[in-house]
Amino acid sequence: MNRRELFTTALAASVLSAQSGSKVTKYCRFRKGNAAPAMGILDGETIRELRGNLFANPTETGAKHKLSEVKLLTPIPTPSKILALAGNYRSHLGGGTPRPNPEPFFKPPSSLQDPEGPVIMPPGAKDVHFECELVIVIGKTARRLSKAQAKDAIFGVTCGNDVSERIWQNDPKIKDVQWWRAKGADTFSPVGPVIARGIDYANLKIETRLNGKVMQSDSTSHLVHDCETVVSFISQAVTLNPGDLIFTGTPGKTTAMKVGDSVEIDIEGIGILRNKIVAG
Amino acid sequence: MNRRELFTTALAASVLSAQSGSKVTKYCRFRKGNAAPAMGILDGETIRELRGNLFANPTETGAKHKLSEVKLLTPIPTPSKILALAGNYRSHLGGGTPRPNPEPFFKPPSSLQDPEGPVIMPPGAKDVHFECELVIVIGKTARRLSKAQAKDAIFGVTCGNDVSERIWQNDPKIKDVQWWRAKGADTFSPVGPVIARGIDYANLKIETRLNGKVMQSDSTSHLVHDCETVVSFISQAVTLNPGDLIFTGTPGKTTAMKVGDSVEIDIEGIGILRNKIVAG
Repeated sequence: MNRRELFTTALAASVLSAQSGSKVTKYCRFRKGNAAPAMGILDGETIRELRGNLFANPTETGAKHKLSEVKLLTPIPTPSKILALAGNYRSHLGGGTPRPNPEPFFKPPSSLQDPEGPVIMPPGAKDVHFECELVIVIGKTARRLSKAQAKDAIFGVTCGNDVSERIWQNDPKIKDVQWWRAKGADTFSPVGPVIARGIDYANLKIETRLNGKVMQSDSTSHLVHDCETVVSFISQAVTLNPGDLIFTGTPGKTTAMKVGDSVEIDIEGIGILRNKIVAG
Repeated sequence: MNRRELFTTALAASVLSAQSGSKVTKYCRFRKGNAAPAMGILDGETIRELRGNLFANPTETGAKHKLSEVKLLTPIPTPSKILALAGNYRSHLGGGTPRPNPEPFFKPPSSLQDPEGPVIMPPGAKDVHFECELVIVIGKTARRLSKAQAKDAIFGVTCGNDVSERIWQNDPKIKDVQWWRAKGADTFSPVGPVIARGIDYANLKIETRLNGKVMQSDSTSHLVHDCETVVSFISQAVTLNPGDLIFTGTPGKTTAMKVGDSVEIDIEGIGILRNKIVAG
């Protein structure tokens, strides 16, 4: 099998078994040959192409494509903003006490990367870690919402890798004042391969594999602050727009990646987000 | 005079005298009545309307409008990102040593506010300060640029108020992990009234007035890291796009604002950015 076939197989048969019984729709964005990128619904090995606004009842064009014949792209290429959370799994806190509120920070849209796209080491980066994360996709304008209202504003979820340079982030002597490049360098936000809508995102297995070896493994049921709490809390101060993304935090321990490594974020019922580490 | 007339007068006759001899173009965005927002060139009291992309040789439509008959809007409503700098004037460091590199952080586009628009106190905010700042407007895609290349990527400059909630930002006991809402709450980024292109932005008087009283006063010649250094540095890790904004830091000391206050950011040769503080 070549890389493309391997990927397709991995997507169809995620190592983490999918939930059964729920009605889940998987939205993807893709490019076929030199055509303009399009949105679609992934159903097994087939993509049914969509037209219109993903968040306002898009319609099917009638065109169908084989998954093996397209390149999948990050599902939302130009969100108005991306947030991510610090310290939102107990297993990541090393015995520390969770913070009373969600602790967001911003990642820029310029840091997005496609499934299978390279994570490029920026100049000066020396300690670049993976972080598997469930990513919320906002579907409605969200301003000062209650938790119940927040649930309705969540369109779906996808996989994200909150790539992090730990020296810029944490080194007591030379860390940056804020995490702008530690978390925001170009290609530091791979997202995809699909947006799962209608899935029970509060109870999904989540895993990182580095060159095939399991490095992080947990469940989204262990989020300190659940998805509705996070959206409600952020929306008290910062209005969220359709297409905005929220990385919900990473579990367990992370390690440095090196050039040539292959990193997979696998979330049950969504799929596998795979990226390779490449020199700057 | 009503508020509109006062504002127009203030814009025409900035308290800080404009530079003479240079050929400066002032770009603005405005709305007239119920018409769609448009871009234009402000020439004295007249706006010459533009069509097309501001960063790709826009052309004049031939329409002219009186400044007194339009509402000015924030010049770039949907930048792909906004950055701002911490500690970039010696006068703001209270005797501390400047950091060796620029120290950026992100503000979300949802925090933008128009000239004359309200700065709205978010729920729970208790110590909301003004920060007058020169704001760089990027005109070209900027990735890993030298300082010389960075100069060419700077389209122009405008005025910004980096509104900051100091408890969320700095309180040793309860501050947030990152400055997402301290600097990024809705309406915490007033920007405008115009983009000045062709101005010598390295030597402009910059001032904040609160209810008419001068609170900050300095010169952009005292920036620790100048505009070209800032753009070059950021672009090593984070690609900048046309329309991206960079707040370059604030001088001197800041104080809390209260509901009903009027705050003016006045930069020589650009104009006055005036906003009122309003309850949440």
